[in-house]
Amino acid sequence: MKLMRIGPKGQERPVVMDANGGLRDLSGVVPDFAGAGVSLAAIDAIRALDLTTLPELPAGARIGSCLAGVPNFYCIGLNYARHAAETGARIPAEPILFTKAVSSLSGPNDAVSIPPGSTKSDWEVELGVVIGAPCWQLSEADALSRVAGYCVVNDLSEREWQMERGGQWIKGKSAPGFGPCGPWLVTADDVPDPQALALSLDLNGARVQDSDTSDMIFGVAQIVSYLSKFMELLPGDLISTGTPSGVGLGMKPPRFLRAGDTMALRVEGLGEQRQDVVA
Amino acid sequence: MKLMRIGPKGQERPVVMDANGGLRDLSGVVPDFAGAGVSLAAIDAIRALDLTTLPELPAGARIGSCLAGVPNFYCIGLNYARHAAETGARIPAEPILFTKAVSSLSGPNDAVSIPPGSTKSDWEVELGVVIGAPCWQLSEADALSRVAGYCVVNDLSEREWQMERGGQWIKGKSAPGFGPCGPWLVTADDVPDPQALALSLDLNGARVQDSDTSDMIFGVAQIVSYLSKFMELLPGDLISTGTPSGVGLGMKPPRFLRAGDTMALRVEGLGEQRQDVVA
Repeated sequence: MKLMRIGPKGQERPVVMDANGGLRDLSGVVPDFAGAGVSLAAIDAIRALDLTTLPELPAGARIGSCLAGVPNFYCIGLNYARHAAETGARIPAEPILFTKAVSSLSGPNDAVSIPPGSTKSDWEVELGVVIGAPCWQLSEADALSRVAGYCVVNDLSEREWQMERGGQWIKGKSAPGFGPCGPWLVTADDVPDPQALALSLDLNGARVQDSDTSDMIFGVAQIVSYLSKFMELLPGDLISTGTPSGVGLGMKPPRFLRAGDTMALRVEGLGEQRQDVVA
Repeated sequence: MKLMRIGPKGQERPVVMDANGGLRDLSGVVPDFAGAGVSLAAIDAIRALDLTTLPELPAGARIGSCLAGVPNFYCIGLNYARHAAETGARIPAEPILFTKAVSSLSGPNDAVSIPPGSTKSDWEVELGVVIGAPCWQLSEADALSRVAGYCVVNDLSEREWQMERGGQWIKGKSAPGFGPCGPWLVTADDVPDPQALALSLDLNGARVQDSDTSDMIFGVAQIVSYLSKFMELLPGDLISTGTPSGVGLGMKPPRFLRAGDTMALRVEGLGEQRQDVVA
Protein backbone atom coordinates (compact mmCIF):
# COMPACT_ATOMS: atom_id res chain seq x y z
CA MET A 1 0.00 0.00 0.00
CA LYS A 2 1.30 3.46 -0.92
CA LEU A 3 0.47 6.39 1.37
CA MET A 4 1.09 9.97 0.28
CA ARG A 5 0.33 13.55 1.24
CA ILE A 6 -0.93 15.84 -1.52
CA GLY A 7 -1.49 19.58 -1.65
CA PRO A 8 0.14 22.95 -0.97
CA LYS A 9 2.81 23.08 1.74
CA GLY A 10 1.15 23.01 5.15
CA GLN A 11 -2.24 22.04 3.68
CA GLU A 12 -1.50 18.51 2.47
CA ARG A 13 -4.19 15.82 2.63
CA PRO A 14 -3.44 12.20 3.48
CA VAL A 15 -3.99 9.99 0.46
CA VAL A 16 -3.81 6.31 -0.37
CA MET A 17 -3.14 5.01 -3.86
CA ASP A 18 -5.85 2.67 -5.17
CA ALA A 19 -5.39 -0.40 -7.38
CA ASN A 20 -5.46 1.77 -10.52
CA GLY A 21 -2.97 4.34 -9.25
CA GLY A 22 -5.74 6.78 -8.34
CA LEU A 23 -5.30 9.08 -5.36
CA ARG A 24 -8.00 8.47 -2.74
CA ASP A 25 -8.52 11.22 -0.17
CA LEU A 26 -8.26 9.92 3.41
CA SER A 27 -8.68 13.30 5.10
CA GLY A 28 -12.28 12.54 6.07
CA VAL A 29 -11.49 9.22 7.72
CA VAL A 30 -7.99 9.25 9.25
CA PRO A 31 -5.76 11.81 10.97
CA ASP A 32 -2.70 13.04 9.14
CA PHE A 33 0.34 10.77 8.70
CA ALA A 34 2.38 11.55 11.80
CA GLY A 35 3.01 9.74 15.06
CA ALA A 36 0.15 7.35 15.85
CA GLY A 37 -1.32 8.19 12.42
CA VAL A 38 1.17 5.73 10.89
CA SER A 39 1.05 3.11 13.65
CA LEU A 40 0.52 -0.49 12.57
CA ALA A 41 -3.05 -0.25 13.86
CA ALA A 42 -3.72 2.92 11.86
CA ILE A 43 -2.35 1.30 8.70
CA ASP A 44 -4.48 -1.80 9.28
CA ALA A 45 -7.53 0.47 9.56
CA ILE A 46 -6.71 2.08 6.20
CA ARG A 47 -6.20 -1.35 4.65
CA ALA A 48 -9.70 -2.34 5.78
CA LEU A 49 -11.37 0.58 3.95
CA ASP A 50 -13.22 0.19 0.66
CA LEU A 51 -11.12 2.70 -1.28
CA THR A 52 -13.70 3.00 -4.04
CA THR A 53 -15.97 4.85 -1.59
CA LEU A 54 -13.39 7.61 -1.02
CA PRO A 55 -13.18 10.83 -3.10
CA GLU A 56 -10.58 10.64 -5.88
CA LEU A 57 -8.21 13.61 -6.10
CA PRO A 58 -6.90 14.84 -9.45
CA ALA A 59 -3.35 13.87 -10.34
CA GLY A 60 -0.66 16.50 -10.78
CA ALA A 61 -0.88 18.34 -7.46
CA ARG A 62 2.19 18.95 -5.32
CA ILE A 63 3.43 15.95 -3.35
CA GLY A 64 4.28 16.72 0.28
CA SER A 65 6.53 14.84 2.67
CA CYS A 66 4.89 11.45 3.20
CA LEU A 67 5.08 12.21 6.94
CA ALA A 68 3.45 15.37 8.32
CA GLY A 69 5.78 15.28 11.29
CA VAL A 70 7.83 12.79 13.23
CA PRO A 71 8.41 12.37 16.95
CA ASN A 72 12.11 11.86 16.14
CA PHE A 73 14.04 12.09 12.86
CA TYR A 74 16.87 9.63 13.51
CA CYS A 75 19.76 9.00 11.12
CA ILE A 76 22.49 6.38 10.99
CA GLY A 77 25.93 7.63 9.97
CA LEU A 78 28.61 5.90 7.90
CA ASN A 79 26.50 2.77 7.33
CA TYR A 80 28.03 1.81 3.95
CA ALA A 81 31.71 0.84 4.00
CA ARG A 82 32.80 2.76 0.88
CA HIS A 83 31.02 5.91 2.12
CA ALA A 84 32.87 5.71 5.43
CA ALA A 85 36.11 5.43 3.45
CA GLU A 86 35.33 8.40 1.19
CA THR A 87 34.72 10.65 4.19
CA GLY A 88 38.01 9.59 5.78
CA ALA A 89 36.24 7.85 8.68
CA ARG A 90 36.81 4.36 10.01
CA ILE A 91 34.14 1.68 9.64
CA PRO A 92 32.05 2.07 12.80
CA ALA A 93 32.02 -0.77 15.33
CA GLU A 94 28.37 -0.05 16.16
CA PRO A 95 25.72 2.19 14.54
CA ILE A 96 26.43 5.94 14.69
CA LEU A 97 23.26 7.79 15.61
CA PHE A 98 22.40 11.45 15.11
CA THR A 99 19.22 13.40 14.43
CA LYS A 100 17.89 15.97 11.99
CA ALA A 101 15.58 18.77 13.13
CA VAL A 102 11.96 17.85 12.43
CA SER A 103 11.62 21.22 10.69
CA SER A 104 13.89 19.94 7.89
CA LEU A 105 11.12 17.64 6.53
CA SER A 106 9.98 18.60 3.05
CA GLY A 107 8.31 17.27 -0.07
CA PRO A 108 10.22 14.94 -2.39
CA ASN A 109 10.21 17.37 -5.30
CA ASP A 110 10.37 20.70 -3.44
CA ALA A 111 13.24 22.99 -4.42
CA VAL A 112 16.22 22.82 -2.04
CA SER A 113 17.46 26.24 -0.89
CA ILE A 114 21.12 26.60 -0.01
CA PRO A 115 20.89 28.11 3.50
CA PRO A 116 22.52 31.49 4.20
CA GLY A 117 26.27 31.09 4.74
CA SER A 118 26.48 27.54 3.41
CA THR A 119 29.35 26.64 1.09
CA LYS A 120 29.37 22.84 1.55
CA SER A 121 25.81 21.56 1.03
CA ASP A 122 25.81 17.93 -0.08
CA TRP A 123 23.41 15.12 -1.05
CA GLU A 124 22.76 11.66 0.48
CA VAL A 125 20.20 9.19 -0.89
CA GLU A 126 18.94 6.90 1.88
CA LEU A 127 16.38 4.25 2.78
CA GLY A 128 13.99 5.66 5.42
CA VAL A 129 12.32 3.31 7.92
CA VAL A 130 9.08 4.36 9.63
CA ILE A 131 8.38 2.81 13.03
CA GLY A 132 4.86 1.43 13.58
CA ALA A 133 4.79 0.43 17.26
CA PRO A 134 6.70 1.25 20.46
CA CYS A 135 10.13 -0.44 20.58
CA TRP A 136 12.08 -0.80 23.84
CA GLN A 137 14.65 -3.53 24.46
CA LEU A 138 13.61 -5.27 21.25
CA SER A 139 15.39 -8.29 19.75
CA GLU A 140 16.55 -8.29 16.12
CA ALA A 141 14.13 -11.15 15.47
CA ASP A 142 11.19 -8.97 16.51
CA ALA A 143 12.38 -5.72 14.94
CA LEU A 144 10.93 -5.84 11.42
CA SER A 145 7.47 -6.65 12.80
CA ARG A 146 7.41 -3.13 14.31
CA VAL A 147 8.17 -1.35 11.02
CA ALA A 148 5.21 0.47 9.44
CA GLY A 149 6.92 1.08 6.12
CA TYR A 150 9.70 2.60 4.08
CA CYS A 151 10.38 5.76 2.08
CA VAL A 152 13.09 7.60 0.15
CA VAL A 153 15.01 10.24 2.16
CA ASN A 154 17.57 12.77 0.94
CA ASP A 155 19.69 13.39 4.05
CA LEU A 156 20.98 16.77 2.85
CA SER A 157 24.09 17.80 4.77
CA GLU A 158 26.11 20.96 5.21
CA ARG A 159 29.59 19.53 5.73
CA GLU A 160 31.24 22.51 7.42
CA TRP A 161 28.32 22.85 9.85
CA GLN A 162 28.28 19.07 10.39
CA MET A 163 31.95 18.57 11.08
CA GLU A 164 33.66 21.88 11.89
CA ARG A 165 31.19 23.61 14.20
CA GLY A 166 31.33 21.79 17.52
CA GLY A 167 31.44 18.01 17.44
CA GLN A 168 27.84 16.90 17.02
CA TRP A 169 26.48 16.49 13.50
CA ILE A 170 22.94 17.88 13.86
CA LYS A 171 23.91 21.46 12.94
CA GLY A 172 24.74 20.40 9.40
CA LYS A 173 21.70 18.19 8.87
CA SER A 174 18.77 20.39 9.77
CA ALA A 175 18.20 23.44 7.55
CA PRO A 176 14.66 23.94 6.20
CA GLY A 177 14.21 21.63 3.21
CA PHE A 178 17.17 19.41 4.15
CA GLY A 179 14.87 16.40 4.70
CA PRO A 180 12.92 15.54 1.52
CA CYS A 181 10.82 12.49 2.37
CA GLY A 182 8.67 10.41 0.01
CA PRO A 183 6.93 10.45 -2.46
CA TRP A 184 5.37 7.37 -0.86
CA LEU A 185 5.32 5.69 2.50
CA VAL A 186 5.27 2.11 1.19
CA THR A 187 3.86 -0.18 3.86
CA ALA A 188 6.12 -2.96 5.07
CA ASP A 189 4.02 -5.76 3.54
CA ASP A 190 4.99 -4.41 0.12
CA VAL A 191 8.73 -4.47 0.92
CA PRO A 192 9.53 -8.16 1.44
CA ASP A 193 13.28 -7.59 1.94
CA PRO A 194 14.54 -4.11 2.93
CA GLN A 195 18.12 -5.34 2.41
CA ALA A 196 17.62 -5.97 -1.33
CA LEU A 197 16.81 -2.50 -2.68
CA ALA A 198 18.86 -0.68 -5.29
CA LEU A 199 19.30 3.03 -4.52
CA SER A 200 20.86 5.79 -6.56
CA LEU A 201 21.26 9.55 -6.96
CA ASP A 202 21.88 11.44 -10.18
CA LEU A 203 23.36 14.94 -10.11
CA ASN A 204 22.49 16.91 -13.24
CA GLY A 205 21.74 13.63 -15.00
CA ALA A 206 25.02 11.87 -14.11
CA ARG A 207 24.85 8.96 -11.68
CA VAL A 208 26.96 9.75 -8.60
CA GLN A 209 25.51 7.31 -6.03
CA ASP A 210 24.68 3.76 -7.12
CA SER A 211 24.42 1.00 -4.56
CA ASP A 212 22.16 -1.52 -2.89
CA THR A 213 20.86 -1.83 0.66
CA SER A 214 22.54 -5.24 0.86
CA ASP A 215 25.76 -3.25 1.28
CA MET A 216 24.67 -1.73 4.60
CA ILE A 217 27.02 -2.43 7.49
CA PHE A 218 24.09 -2.61 9.93
CA GLY A 219 20.78 -3.77 8.45
CA VAL A 220 17.33 -2.44 9.31
CA ALA A 221 16.54 -5.13 11.90
CA GLN A 222 19.89 -4.60 13.61
CA ILE A 223 19.41 -0.83 13.66
CA VAL A 224 15.89 -0.95 15.11
CA SER A 225 16.91 -3.47 17.79
CA TYR A 226 20.12 -1.56 18.60
CA LEU A 227 18.40 1.81 18.99
CA SER A 228 15.73 0.25 21.23
CA LYS A 229 18.45 -0.48 23.81
CA PHE A 230 19.11 3.26 24.23
CA MET A 231 15.71 4.89 23.74
CA GLU A 232 12.11 3.91 23.23
CA LEU A 233 11.24 4.23 19.56
CA LEU A 234 7.74 5.61 18.97
CA PRO A 235 5.13 5.09 16.23
CA GLY A 236 5.92 7.54 13.46
CA ASP A 237 9.65 7.82 14.24
CA LEU A 238 11.68 7.99 11.03
CA ILE A 239 15.11 6.35 10.83
CA SER A 240 17.20 7.22 7.79
CA THR A 241 19.64 4.36 7.46
CA GLY A 242 22.76 5.94 5.96
CA THR A 243 24.04 6.73 2.49
CA PRO A 244 26.30 4.82 0.10
CA SER A 245 29.46 6.29 -1.45
CA GLY A 246 29.30 9.03 -4.05
CA VAL A 247 28.58 12.16 -2.02
CA GLY A 248 30.14 15.49 -2.96
CA LEU A 249 32.45 15.46 0.07
CA GLY A 250 34.12 12.29 -1.26
CA MET A 251 34.91 13.67 -4.73
CA LYS A 252 38.41 14.87 -5.59
CA PRO A 253 38.17 17.81 -5.38
CA PRO A 254 34.95 17.93 -3.30
CA ARG A 255 31.91 19.06 -5.30
CA PHE A 256 29.14 20.75 -3.33
CA LEU A 257 25.65 21.85 -4.39
CA ARG A 258 25.18 25.06 -6.38
CA ALA A 259 22.07 26.92 -7.50
CA GLY A 260 20.94 25.37 -10.78
CA ASP A 261 21.90 21.80 -9.85
CA THR A 262 19.28 19.08 -10.01
CA MET A 263 19.20 15.92 -7.87
CA ALA A 264 17.21 12.82 -8.84
CA LEU A 265 16.97 10.05 -6.24
CA ARG A 266 15.43 6.63 -6.23
CA VAL A 267 15.14 3.62 -3.97
CA GLU A 268 13.80 0.49 -5.64
CA GLY A 269 10.05 0.17 -5.14
CA LEU A 270 9.80 3.38 -3.10
CA GLY A 271 9.56 5.95 -5.90
CA GLU A 272 11.66 8.86 -7.06
CA GLN A 273 12.52 12.35 -5.85
CA ARG A 274 13.68 15.27 -7.98
CA GLN A 275 14.93 18.51 -6.45
CA ASP A 276 16.15 21.71 -8.06
CA VAL A 277 18.76 23.59 -6.04
CA VAL A 278 18.14 27.32 -5.56
CA ALA A 279 20.09 30.07 -3.84
CA MET B 1 1.50 32.40 34.48
CA LYS B 2 2.22 28.79 35.46
CA LEU B 3 1.07 26.02 33.11
CA MET B 4 1.08 22.38 34.23
CA ARG B 5 -0.14 18.95 33.21
CA ILE B 6 -1.89 16.91 35.89
CA GLY B 7 -3.02 13.28 35.98
CA PRO B 8 -1.89 9.70 35.40
CA LYS B 9 0.88 9.16 32.83
CA GLY B 10 -0.55 9.47 29.32
CA GLN B 11 -3.84 10.94 30.61
CA GLU B 12 -2.63 14.32 31.87
CA ARG B 13 -4.89 17.38 31.59
CA PRO B 14 -3.53 20.85 30.77
CA VAL B 15 -3.92 23.12 33.77
CA VAL B 16 -3.24 26.75 34.63
CA MET B 17 -2.56 27.96 38.15
CA ASP B 18 -4.96 30.67 39.32
CA ALA B 19 -4.14 33.63 41.57
CA ASN B 20 -4.72 31.53 44.69
CA GLY B 21 -2.56 28.59 43.55
CA GLY B 22 -5.64 26.61 42.49
CA LEU B 23 -5.38 24.25 39.50
CA ARG B 24 -7.83 25.26 36.77
CA ASP B 25 -8.62 22.61 34.15
CA LEU B 26 -7.98 23.83 30.60
CA SER B 27 -8.79 20.54 28.88
CA GLY B 28 -12.17 21.84 27.71
CA VAL B 29 -10.80 24.98 26.11
CA VAL B 30 -7.27 24.41 24.77
CA PRO B 31 -5.35 21.54 23.18
CA ASP B 32 -2.62 19.87 25.17
CA PHE B 33 0.69 21.67 25.79
CA ALA B 34 2.75 20.57 22.79
CA GLY B 35 3.84 22.25 19.58
CA ALA B 36 1.42 25.03 18.64
CA GLY B 37 -0.35 24.45 21.97
CA VAL B 38 2.38 26.51 23.65
CA SER B 39 2.81 29.11 20.90
CA LEU B 40 2.80 32.74 21.96
CA ALA B 41 -0.70 33.05 20.48
CA ALA B 42 -1.96 30.02 22.43
CA ILE B 43 -0.54 31.43 25.66
CA ASP B 44 -2.14 34.81 24.97
CA ALA B 45 -5.47 33.04 24.53
CA ILE B 46 -5.09 31.34 27.93
CA ARG B 47 -4.16 34.66 29.51
CA ALA B 48 -7.40 36.16 28.19
CA LEU B 49 -9.59 33.53 29.91
CA ASP B 50 -11.53 34.20 33.10
CA LEU B 51 -9.95 31.43 35.14
CA THR B 52 -12.69 31.53 37.76
CA THR B 53 -15.06 30.02 35.18
CA LEU B 54 -12.91 26.92 34.75
CA PRO B 55 -13.32 23.73 36.83
CA GLU B 56 -10.85 23.51 39.73
CA LEU B 57 -8.98 20.23 40.07
CA PRO B 58 -8.08 18.84 43.50
CA ALA B 59 -4.46 19.26 44.57
CA GLY B 60 -2.23 16.24 45.15
CA ALA B 61 -2.55 14.44 41.82
CA ARG B 62 0.52 13.37 39.85
CA ILE B 63 2.29 16.15 37.97
CA GLY B 64 3.21 15.22 34.39
CA SER B 65 5.84 16.73 32.13
CA CYS B 66 4.76 20.33 31.52
CA LEU B 67 5.05 19.54 27.78
CA ALA B 68 3.03 16.66 26.31
CA GLY B 69 5.51 16.36 23.48
CA VAL B 70 8.02 18.51 21.66
CA PRO B 71 8.88 18.83 17.98
CA ASN B 72 12.55 18.78 19.00
CA PHE B 73 14.24 18.26 22.38
CA TYR B 74 17.45 20.27 21.90
CA CYS B 75 20.25 20.48 24.45
CA ILE B 76 23.33 22.64 24.75
CA GLY B 77 26.49 20.89 25.96
CA LEU B 78 29.28 22.22 28.18
CA ASN B 79 27.63 25.63 28.65
CA TYR B 80 29.10 26.37 32.10
CA ALA B 81 32.88 26.77 32.26
CA ARG B 82 33.50 24.72 35.41
CA HIS B 83 31.34 21.87 34.08
CA ALA B 84 33.39 21.78 30.88
CA ALA B 85 36.52 21.57 33.03
CA GLU B 86 35.17 18.76 35.25
CA THR B 87 34.39 16.60 32.19
CA GLY B 88 37.89 17.14 30.81
CA ALA B 89 36.57 19.12 27.82
CA ARG B 90 37.73 22.48 26.53
CA ILE B 91 35.48 25.53 26.76
CA PRO B 92 33.53 25.46 23.49
CA ALA B 93 34.07 28.27 20.97
CA GLU B 94 30.41 28.10 19.94
CA PRO B 95 27.38 26.29 21.41
CA ILE B 96 27.51 22.49 21.27
CA LEU B 97 24.15 21.11 20.17
CA PHE B 98 22.71 17.64 20.61
CA THR B 99 19.24 16.17 21.10
CA LYS B 100 17.41 13.85 23.45
CA ALA B 101 14.76 11.43 22.17
CA VAL B 102 11.29 12.90 22.67
CA SER B 103 10.34 9.62 24.38
CA SER B 104 12.63 10.55 27.31
CA LEU B 105 10.18 13.26 28.51
CA SER B 106 8.70 12.49 31.94
CA GLY B 107 7.08 14.08 34.95
CA PRO B 108 9.19 16.11 37.38
CA ASN B 109 8.65 13.71 40.27
CA ASP B 110 8.41 10.40 38.42
CA ALA B 111 10.84 7.71 39.56
CA VAL B 112 13.93 7.40 37.35
CA SER B 113 14.71 3.83 36.24
CA ILE B 114 18.31 2.92 35.56
CA PRO B 115 18.05 1.45 32.05
CA PRO B 116 19.20 -2.14 31.42
CA GLY B 117 22.98 -2.33 31.08
CA SER B 118 23.65 1.17 32.45
CA THR B 119 26.49 1.61 34.93
CA LYS B 120 27.11 5.37 34.50
CA SER B 121 23.77 7.18 34.82
CA ASP B 122 24.25 10.79 35.94
CA TRP B 123 22.27 13.93 36.78
CA GLU B 124 22.23 17.44 35.22
CA VAL B 125 19.99 20.28 36.46
CA GLU B 126 19.24 22.72 33.62
CA LEU B 127 17.17 25.71 32.60
CA GLY B 128 14.76 24.67 29.83
CA VAL B 129 13.61 27.23 27.24
CA VAL B 130 10.33 26.68 25.36
CA ILE B 131 10.06 28.31 21.92
CA GLY B 132 6.83 30.19 21.18
CA ALA B 133 7.11 31.17 17.51
CA PRO B 134 9.06 30.08 14.41
CA CYS B 135 12.72 31.22 14.50
CA TRP B 136 14.87 31.26 11.36
CA GLN B 137 17.86 33.58 10.89
CA LEU B 138 16.92 35.47 14.05
CA SER B 139 19.05 38.18 15.66
CA GLU B 140 20.00 38.04 19.34
CA ALA B 141 18.00 41.23 19.88
CA ASP B 142 14.83 39.51 18.66
CA ALA B 143 15.43 36.12 20.28
CA LEU B 144 13.80 36.48 23.70
CA SER B 145 10.59 37.80 22.15
CA ARG B 146 10.10 34.31 20.62
CA VAL B 147 10.38 32.46 23.94
CA ALA B 148 7.10 31.12 25.35
CA GLY B 149 8.50 30.26 28.77
CA TYR B 150 10.91 28.35 30.94
CA CYS B 151 10.99 25.14 32.96
CA VAL B 152 13.27 22.92 35.03
CA VAL B 153 14.88 20.01 33.12
CA ASN B 154 16.95 17.12 34.48
CA ASP B 155 19.13 16.17 31.49
CA LEU B 156 19.82 12.64 32.75
CA SER B 157 22.84 11.15 31.01
CA GLU B 158 24.38 7.70 30.67
CA ARG B 159 28.05 8.59 30.35
CA GLU B 160 29.32 5.38 28.73
CA TRP B 161 26.54 5.49 26.15
CA GLN B 162 27.08 9.23 25.62
CA MET B 163 30.84 9.15 25.14
CA GLU B 164 32.06 5.63 24.41
CA ARG B 165 29.50 4.27 21.94
CA GLY B 166 30.10 6.03 18.67
CA GLY B 167 30.76 9.74 18.76
CA GLN B 168 27.36 11.41 18.97
CA TRP B 169 25.88 12.03 22.43
CA ILE B 170 22.21 11.20 21.86
CA LYS B 171 22.56 7.50 22.82
CA GLY B 172 23.34 8.45 26.40
CA LYS B 173 20.65 11.10 26.76
CA SER B 174 17.48 9.36 25.70
CA ALA B 175 16.33 6.45 27.87
CA PRO B 176 12.69 6.49 29.01
CA GLY B 177 12.42 8.85 31.99
CA PHE B 178 15.73 10.60 31.22
CA GLY B 179 13.95 13.92 30.55
CA PRO B 180 11.99 15.10 33.63
CA CYS B 181 10.41 18.41 32.66
CA GLY B 182 8.47 20.80 34.90
CA PRO B 183 6.62 21.05 37.29
CA TRP B 184 5.63 24.31 35.60
CA LEU B 185 6.02 25.96 32.26
CA VAL B 186 6.43 29.51 33.58
CA THR B 187 5.53 31.99 30.85
CA ALA B 188 8.27 34.39 29.78
CA ASP B 189 6.53 37.48 31.19
CA ASP B 190 7.09 36.02 34.67
CA VAL B 191 10.84 35.50 34.08
CA PRO B 192 12.21 39.02 33.59
CA ASP B 193 15.85 37.88 33.30
CA PRO B 194 16.64 34.26 32.38
CA GLN B 195 20.33 34.95 33.11
CA ALA B 196 19.71 35.65 36.81
CA LEU B 197 18.31 32.36 38.10
CA ALA B 198 19.91 30.24 40.82
CA LEU B 199 19.84 26.52 40.06
CA SER B 200 20.84 23.56 42.18
CA LEU B 201 20.65 19.79 42.58
CA ASP B 202 20.79 17.85 45.83
CA LEU B 203 21.74 14.15 45.82
CA ASN B 204 20.40 12.37 48.90
CA GLY B 205 20.06 15.73 50.61
CA ALA B 206 23.59 16.95 49.93
CA ARG B 207 24.03 19.85 47.52
CA VAL B 208 26.15 18.73 44.54
CA GLN B 209 25.23 21.35 41.88
CA ASP B 210 24.89 24.99 42.96
CA SER B 211 25.19 27.75 40.39
CA ASP B 212 23.44 30.57 38.61
CA THR B 213 22.39 31.04 34.99
CA SER B 214 24.58 34.18 34.90
CA ASP B 215 27.49 31.71 34.65
CA MET B 216 26.37 30.35 31.27
CA ILE B 217 28.96 30.70 28.53
CA PHE B 218 26.22 31.30 25.94
CA GLY B 219 23.05 32.96 27.21
CA VAL B 220 19.48 32.17 26.17
CA ALA B 221 19.25 34.94 23.54
CA GLN B 222 22.58 33.89 22.03
CA ILE B 223 21.54 30.23 21.93
CA VAL B 224 18.17 30.88 20.29
CA SER B 225 19.71 33.20 17.69
CA TYR B 226 22.62 30.83 17.04
CA LEU B 227 20.44 27.75 16.54
CA SER B 228 18.18 29.69 14.17
CA LYS B 229 21.10 29.98 11.75
CA PHE B 230 21.23 26.19 11.35
CA MET B 231 17.60 25.10 11.65
CA GLU B 232 14.16 26.62 11.95
CA LEU B 233 13.04 26.44 15.57
CA LEU B 234 9.35 25.61 15.96
CA PRO B 235 6.71 26.53 18.55
CA GLY B 236 6.96 23.99 21.35
CA ASP B 237 10.64 23.15 20.77
CA LEU B 238 12.44 22.69 24.09
CA ILE B 239 16.06 23.79 24.49
CA SER B 240 17.81 22.63 27.64
CA THR B 241 20.64 25.08 28.13
CA GLY B 242 23.40 23.07 29.78
CA THR B 243 24.34 22.11 33.31
CA PRO B 244 26.73 23.66 35.83
CA SER B 245 29.53 21.74 37.56
CA GLY B 246 28.83 19.07 40.13
CA VAL B 247 27.74 16.08 38.07
CA GLY B 248 28.74 12.55 39.06
CA LEU B 249 31.18 12.23 36.16
CA GLY B 250 33.22 15.10 37.60
CA MET B 251 33.60 13.64 41.09
CA LYS B 252 36.82 11.93 42.14
CA PRO B 253 36.17 9.07 41.92
CA PRO B 254 33.09 9.42 39.66
CA ARG B 255 29.80 8.78 41.49
CA PHE B 256 26.93 7.51 39.36
CA LEU B 257 23.26 6.97 40.22
CA ARG B 258 22.19 3.87 42.17
CA ALA B 259 18.80 2.50 43.11
CA GLY B 260 17.74 4.22 46.33
CA ASP B 261 19.26 7.60 45.47
CA THR B 262 17.07 10.69 45.49
CA MET B 263 17.60 13.80 43.36
CA ALA B 264 16.04 17.18 44.23
CA LEU B 265 16.38 19.94 41.62
CA ARG B 266 15.36 23.55 41.54
CA VAL B 267 15.67 26.56 39.27
CA GLU B 268 14.72 29.87 40.88
CA GLY B 269 11.10 30.76 40.17
CA LEU B 270 10.48 27.61 38.10
CA GLY B 271 9.72 25.13 40.87
CA GLU B 272 11.27 21.92 42.14
CA GLN B 273 11.66 18.34 40.97
CA ARG B 274 12.24 15.29 43.16
CA GLN B 275 13.07 11.88 41.69
CA ASP B 276 13.71 8.54 43.36
CA VAL B 277 16.10 6.28 41.48
CA VAL B 278 14.95 2.70 40.97
CA ALA B 279 16.56 -0.33 39.32
